[in-house]
Amino acid sequence: MERTMAAEPLSELEVIEIIREMLPEPAPGVVVGPGDDAAVIDLAGARVILTVDAIHQGVHFTLDAYDLADVGWKAITSAVSDVAAMGGDPACALVSAAFGYPPTEDEIRLLLRGVVEASAQCGCPIVGGDVCASSDGLSLTVTVVGTPPEEGPVLRSGAGQGDEIGVTGTLGDSAGGLFVLKGRSDDLRSRFPRLVEVHLRPRPLLAAGKALAAAGVSAMADVSDGLARDISNICRASKAGCEIAAENVPISEELRALAGEAMLDPLQMALAGGEDYQLLFTAPPATFGRAASALEAIGVAVTRLGAIKEASSGVRLLGPDGRSSDMEGLGYDHFL
Amino acid sequence: MERTMAAEPLSELEVIEIIREMLPEPAPGVVVGPGDDAAVIDLAGARVILTVDAIHQGVHFTLDAYDLADVGWKAITSAVSDVAAMGGDPACALVSAAFGYPPTEDEIRLLLRGVVEASAQCGCPIVGGDVCASSDGLSLTVTVVGTPPEEGPVLRSGAGQGDEIGVTGTLGDSAGGLFVLKGRSDDLRSRFPRLVEVHLRPRPLLAAGKALAAAGVSAMADVSDGLARDISNICRASKAGCEIAAENVPISEELRALAGEAMLDPLQMALAGGEDYQLLFTAPPATFGRAASALEAIGVAVTRLGAIKEASSGVRLLGPDGRSSDMEGLGYDHFL
Repeated sequence: MERTMAAEPLSELEVIEIIREMLPEPAPGVVVGPGDDAAVIDLAGARVILTVDAIHQGVHFTLDAYDLADVGWKAITSAVSDVAAMGGDPACALVSAAFGYPPTEDEIRLLLRGVVEASAQCGCPIVGGDVCASSDGLSLTVTVVGTPPEEGPVLRSGAGQGDEIGVTGTLGDSAGGLFVLKGRSDDLRSRFPRLVEVHLRPRPLLAAGKALAAAGVSAMADVSDGLARDISNICRASKAGCEIAAENVPISEELRALAGEAMLDPLQMALAGGEDYQLLFTAPPATFGRAASALEAIGVAVTRLGAIKEASSGVRLLGPDGRSSDMEGLGYDHFL
Repeated sequence: MERTMAAEPLSELEVIEIIREMLPEPAPGVVVGPGDDAAVIDLAGARVILTVDAIHQGVHFTLDAYDLADVGWKAITSAVSDVAAMGGDPACALVSAAFGYPPTEDEIRLLLRGVVEASAQCGCPIVGGDVCASSDGLSLTVTVVGTPPEEGPVLRSGAGQGDEIGVTGTLGDSAGGLFVLKGRSDDLRSRFPRLVEVHLRPRPLLAAGKALAAAGVSAMADVSDGLARDISNICRASKAGCEIAAENVPISEELRALAGEAMLDPLQMALAGGEDYQLLFTAPPATFGRAASALEAIGVAVTRLGAIKEASSGVRLLGPDGRSSDMEGLGYDHFL
């Protein structure tokens, strides 16, 4: 894209804000419009979840760290994760692929192998797509269509003051895996295989999303841009603030070990790293216990991070020294 | 994308063939899988059309010839056209945008203006999407969700031997408009405004698609890759051949005039130019008359091009000298 106008470039959040302002009021039948993990519409008598997610070479992946099967896998699973974040079931997907140069047979087969494996893993058949040339690298844009849970889709906007904040699994592992991959060290890679696996082969938490929806949680999102940004998104959508205790942020033993020897800050990796695809949710205290039990029953670990506060509190991280800091500026912004 | 393996690169058709071979059998609920203008699935009791289409800077457009509003318009309308080609109604769209550099406010507003105008023109509200950085130019990937006509979606695969082949409007105008834009001549642009308009601001023929579906045509596709390739697609899907008379191919007065002064071959532009978004269809002779009348009733011109033959005839163009040539190799291939 050639620069055509002289002016200040915008951040990703500013771009999204302008887009929302310019789009007309939701049409009839649009249950959830732009701004959540996915859209929800009523179509010919059915309620449908729709989401799209793209991965671009040089931005989301490089082909020295990923093989093409990993790229195909991640394109599908990162899009399906948006359906998990509403408590829904994926039904099918479309894949739009752009290639910087005509692929060879081996390359297209490797890429497709990852797509097909992820599609089978998620129960989300590929029903269509398109293929074209791009002027640069490989990109895959995946649309997933799904159905919401009986209880209705869990939105980002439902968090209420006093709700507890929970998260599944551990955070920052994907950022740890990326660090290992970038270092190109066979030694590191052989000692931290799970971190690499979390980064290259994320698994959408579909069963956990459905269990949380059934338990009646008030808001949910997947952790795709880092805990700081994703909890900020929930707070913004819910017109609320929050306080999270740094000591509660769940960090795996592997990530602590890697961080220790590589002089990394695992908390920062959890807050700003992204691509963990864990589920972040809020629930009133009574419901929170039920949600935690439902997760434990299916073998998914859960951690209580903190609580939803009034909007004027901001989005705060409480450090071990008792000081609190603002999390809203943290996390991945495509344009900063 | 760095080359990782030494082997022959494939054509677009070969890539698509491998993809189809590698995808598993259609899942239950998949009415039309990969290979048509769009997919059709049964979802929570509703029958739904799904399609995705991408436009990439440097491949589908350049920002010296297009302004950003044109890019936004064309991204939406080229995807909606796939729904028109099944006789369906668009319901809503998702837009995935990748930017080579952080856009300015003026840029994002101009791009969105085109998206919003096209969305209103097509009755297809934008319900979601995503925004990210790319390592190169601007690209927009648009998913359109729609509903098929009561009679069922019109597929590429329904053409039968003896069917007549028809097309709406005139062909090659978009290629003419692109030629004018590339020449950067204000004189040409002022004398051929309709050709430029056809290229920059295509209008999906939704009413014509519905009229053709209601008339009971046997196969349909939109002319996006040039008549030669699009009729080849219908023949391949229908396991048939065809014969089209070159003298029947509808060429506008403006395109003839431009071609005359610029030493262009308007027939080649119609056959291989693409992006006309006219509707190409087949119908048994009795139905063809009904279809033509239905189009005339809504003010859409229609031309009889030729007839569907047995597969062994190939996909033939009959020249004015009585000689016939093969059309299967013509038309736009992203990788050739």
